Amino acid sequence: MKSKNKTIQVLLTHYREIATLGSISRVLDWDLNVNLPEKAAVERGEQSAYLTGLTADKWQSADFQRNLEKAAQLIQKLTHEEQAIVRNLAWSSNYYTKIPKELLIEHSKVCSEGFLGWRKAREQNDFAVFEPYLSRIVEISRMFAQHLGYEKDPYDALLNLYEQNMTVSQLDPIFNQIIGFLTPFLKNYSDRKSKTDYLAYVNNDKNYPIARQKNLVLFIIKKMGYDIRAGRMDESAHPFTLPLGRFDVRITNRYKPHDLRESIAIGMHEAGHALYEQGVDETYAYTPLDSGVSLGIHESQSRFWENQIGKSTAFLSFLTPVLQAYFPEALSDCTTEELFELFNHVEPSLIRTEADEVTYNLHIALRYELEKGIINGKIKVKDLPKKWNEGMKSLLGVEPKSDSEGILQDVHWSYGAIGYFPTYTLGNLYSAQFTNKMQKELDIINLSGNGDLGTILVWLRDNIHRYGSLYWPDELCQKITGEPLNPKYFIEYIKNKY
Amino acid sequence: MKSKNKTIQVLLTHYREIATLGSISRVLDWDLNVNLPEKAAVERGEQSAYLTGLTADKWQSADFQRNLEKAAQLIQKLTHEEQAIVRNLAWSSNYYTKIPKELLIEHSKVCSEGFLGWRKAREQNDFAVFEPYLSRIVEISRMFAQHLGYEKDPYDALLNLYEQNMTVSQLDPIFNQIIGFLTPFLKNYSDRKSKTDYLAYVNNDKNYPIARQKNLVLFIIKKMGYDIRAGRMDESAHPFTLPLGRFDVRITNRYKPHDLRESIAIGMHEAGHALYEQGVDETYAYTPLDSGVSLGIHESQSRFWENQIGKSTAFLSFLTPVLQAYFPEALSDCTTEELFELFNHVEPSLIRTEADEVTYNLHIALRYELEKGIINGKIKVKDLPKKWNEGMKSLLGVEPKSDSEGILQDVHWSYGAIGYFPTYTLGNLYSAQFTNKMQKELDIINLSGNGDLGTILVWLRDNIHRYGSLYWPDELCQKITGEPLNPKYFIEYIKNKY
Repeated sequence: MKSKNKTIQVLLTHYREIATLGSISRVLDWDLNVNLPEKAAVERGEQSAYLTGLTADKWQSADFQRNLEKAAQLIQKLTHEEQAIVRNLAWSSNYYTKIPKELLIEHSKVCSEGFLGWRKAREQNDFAVFEPYLSRIVEISRMFAQHLGYEKDPYDALLNLYEQNMTVSQLDPIFNQIIGFLTPFLKNYSDRKSKTDYLAYVNNDKNYPIARQKNLVLFIIKKMGYDIRAGRMDESAHPFTLPLGRFDVRITNRYKPHDLRESIAIGMHEAGHALYEQGVDETYAYTPLDSGVSLGIHESQSRFWENQIGKSTAFLSFLTPVLQAYFPEALSDCTTEELFELFNHVEPSLIRTEADEVTYNLHIALRYELEKGIINGKIKVKDLPKKWNEGMKSLLGVEPKSDSEGILQDVHWSYGAIGYFPTYTLGNLYSAQFTNKMQKELDIINLSGNGDLGTILVWLRDNIHRYGSLYWPDELCQKITGEPLNPKYFIEYIKNKY
Repeated sequence: MKSKNKTIQVLLTHYREIATLGSISRVLDWDLNVNLPEKAAVERGEQSAYLTGLTADKWQSADFQRNLEKAAQLIQKLTHEEQAIVRNLAWSSNYYTKIPKELLIEHSKVCSEGFLGWRKAREQNDFAVFEPYLSRIVEISRMFAQHLGYEKDPYDALLNLYEQNMTVSQLDPIFNQIIGFLTPFLKNYSDRKSKTDYLAYVNNDKNYPIARQKNLVLFIIKKMGYDIRAGRMDESAHPFTLPLGRFDVRITNRYKPHDLRESIAIGMHEAGHALYEQGVDETYAYTPLDSGVSLGIHESQSRFWENQIGKSTAFLSFLTPVLQAYFPEALSDCTTEELFELFNHVEPSLIRTEADEVTYNLHIALRYELEKGIINGKIKVKDLPKKWNEGMKSLLGVEPKSDSEGILQDVHWSYGAIGYFPTYTLGNLYSAQFTNKMQKELDIINLSGNGDLGTILVWLRDNIHRYGSLYWPDELCQKITGEPLNPKYFIEYIKNKY
C-alpha cells in the first residue's frame, strides 16, 4: 500500500519494519510452542526479548513519533484508510510510549518467570507457589493502567489493550444480562433427559485413530476455505492460530484417541481465526490495517465456525456420512440426531476450555469479576482460590477439589494477560449478532447442510475479513448489523438451539 | 564469557547481539527448510533479508570497528582466547567491511533468484534456464574476490570464506595426489566380484517402515551422545544440521522405504555435525569462539561418524542384531559381512550425494576444477555442462544423460556458495588423519563393536569439539596430529578398508 501523503508514506515505511519484526517474533513463538527442545527455553526467551527491544525502539523512535503527531494534525485531509492508519498507530504506540521502557522490560521478565512459576504450581497443584509471581504481575499491570490512563476504572486501560473502546461500564450490564438469563436456563435445562445414549460414542473403548482425525479436520477446514498452501496445521498442547506472515497463517490442534469432538471443534475454531487473517485485503499487508481488529471480533470468527456452524444440525447432517466413512468401526450406526446431542452436550463443569456453549460465558463472568477485583484492589491475590471456588459454586453449581482444576487452570494471567478473558464472551456475542444478520441474507442451514461453506466464507470476507483493522470493533458491529453490540442475539440463539 | 580487558568486553557485548541475530536467522532458515508453506517463500526471504541488514549494520558499526582496531593494536597483551576472539572478529568483519553494502544486498537478491532459477532449470532439465542466473552469481563472486583480496588466485578469497588459510596452492597438489591414487584404485576395484548377494536387501520389494527407521536412527544418534533435549530430528528434502541456539542444535533426515542405508548414514552424518556444536565449551556460547571453526573441520566430524564408524565392520557387528530386531521381515537372516558390503558398496555413479567413500572425492575434484575455472575466467559459464560431462567421463568413467543428473544436481552455486565444495574433501582427509591419531589412544574397533560410542565422543570433545573456533583449521590439525593436513592418511584408510 502506498500513500500520496508524504507523512503517511513515511509512517508506512517505518511501520513495515515493525511488521517485519513482529512476523519474525511470531516465527519464534510458533516454534517455541510446537518444536522447542527442553533445554532451549532460556535462549528462546532471550531471542524474543531482543526482538521486543528492537520493536520498542522502533515505536519510540523520536522521528516516528514526530511524524505521527504531524499526521494527527492533518487528519481531516486524509482518506478514510489513512485516518485509520494514524488512529491504529497512535493506539499501538501508547503501549510503548506511555509505559516506561524499564517497566516494559521488567514486565516481560516477570511474565517469563510467571509462566514457569505457574507451570510449577500446576505440577504441585498449589496456588501458593504461583502467588508471588501473580502478585508481581498484578502489581505491574496496575502500574500499566496508571501509565496508560483511563476514565473510570483502571481495568478499562487493560481491557483496551485487547478490545478498543471497551469499558467496564459497558461490560458490567452485558455480563449481568447474560448471567441473569443463563443461570435459570441452565437449571431448567439440566432436568431434561436425552432420548439417545450419545455419550457411548466417546467412551474410552472407542478409538478414533489420530492420523485419520487429522485428515478429517483438514478435509473440513479446506471446505471452510482455509488455504493450506498459505498455512499449516501442527500439534501443540495449547492450540492456537498465528500469522507468521500474510501468506503463512498457521494453526495447531490436539487429539484425543477416544473422543473426536475436540479435534474437530478446535480445528474449526482455529481455522476460523485463520480465515479472518487470510481474508484481509491483500493491499493492507504489512500496514497497520492488516490483521483482525480486536480479540473480540477475532473470537467471533472462531466461535462462529466452531459453534454456529460446526455444532449445527445442518452441518452435522452433512458430516454424518463423512464421519461414518472416516471411522466405520466407531460410528457406522450413528445418526445426525445423536451427533447433534454429542457435540452439544451441556453440563456444568470445572474446566473452561471443555465447557459447552451454554456454560462457557459463566466461566468468563467469574474471571472478569476476579480480574476487576485484583486490578481495582478490592480482591487480594492470596484470596483468589477462595473467591474462585465460591464463584464456581454460585455461577455453575460445581466446586473444584484442587487448585489445578480451579484457579490454576488457565495460563493467561501467568504471562500477564489480564483483561483478555472478556473478549471470549464478546466473541460469542458478536458471533450471534453477526449470524443473525447473515441469515437474513444467506440460507445458512441449506448451505451448511450441503457442505457449501465457501458461500458462507464469501459473506464473512465481504462483511468482516477484508476490512482488517480499518474499523474498530464498535464501528464494525454497527456497520455490519446496524446497531451496537447487543447480547439479546446470543440469548435468542441459545434459547432457539437448546 | 567475561573479559577483564575493557575493549574486549565491549567487543564481546556487541558480538552477542550479532550472535543473537544469527540464531534468530537460523530459526527462520530451519523453518524455511522444514515447514514453510508454499506461498510464504517471498515473505520469508524478506524477513531473512531484514535480519541480514541488521547484522551487516552491527558488523559495520563504526564504534565496533574502532574497538576492533584498538584490540588489534594491543593483541600482545591479550590472553590466548582473547587473541582468538580478535582474530575471528576481524576475519568475519572482512566480509561486511571490504565488500560494499550495495554489492552484499545485490548478492543476496541474486542468490534468492538464483535458487528459484536453479529449481526451474532442474524441473525443465535445462541448464540454459539457469545459465543467466549463474553468470550473474559468478560475476558477483569475482567482484567479491577482488574486494576481499588474495595473494595468488582469486579463488583463494572465496575458499577462505569457508576454510581459513586454505589456498589453491595447497589444494592443487592434494587433489592431484588423491586423483592419482583413486583413479587406478577404482579401476582395479571394479574388477573384483562380491561373495554375497547383498544388494538384495535394498530391492524395491523390501520395506523398511519409516517410523521404525526414525526410531532406529534416534537410537543410534543417542548412542553417539547426541542430546535430544537440546535438539530435534525432523525431515527435509535436503538434510542439514543447524544450531538455532547453544542448546538447540537440530538435524534433519530423509527416508527411503526400500533402503535403510540413507537414513542411517545421513542421521550419523548430521549428528556428527551436531555433536561438534553441542560439544563446544559452554563458556564460549555467544562469543566469536562458539561454533565449529571451519566447514572442513566440521565435515571431518560428520564424515567420521558416517564412514569411519558407521560403515565399519566393528560397528556393523554391533548393529546387526539391532537391525534384525527393527526389521525382522527384511533382515532376520542378514550377516555382518553382508551389511558391510551393503553399506560399503563401491560403484562410480552420477550423483555426488549418493557416492561411496571411494568415488566421492572425485566428484569434488571435478567441482573444484570447474569453480577455479569460472572464477579465474578460464572457463565460461555456458561451457560448464560440456566441461562437466567430460570431467565425469575422465574421472569416473560415467557420463550424465541430462543436465539434471549432471551440472544441475547440486544446489550450492545457485545460492552463491562457490568455494564450498572443496571443504567436503578436506573433511574426508581431516577425518582420516584424526582417526589415525585417535586409534593410537583408543581401541576404536572394540569400542564400536560394543556400541560404546560415548568413549569415542569423549576423545572428540577433548581434542576437537570443546575448542570451538579457538584454533584455526591448520593450527588445530597440527595440535591434534602433530603435522599439517596430509592426504596419505586418507589413502591408507581407503587401501586398508577396500
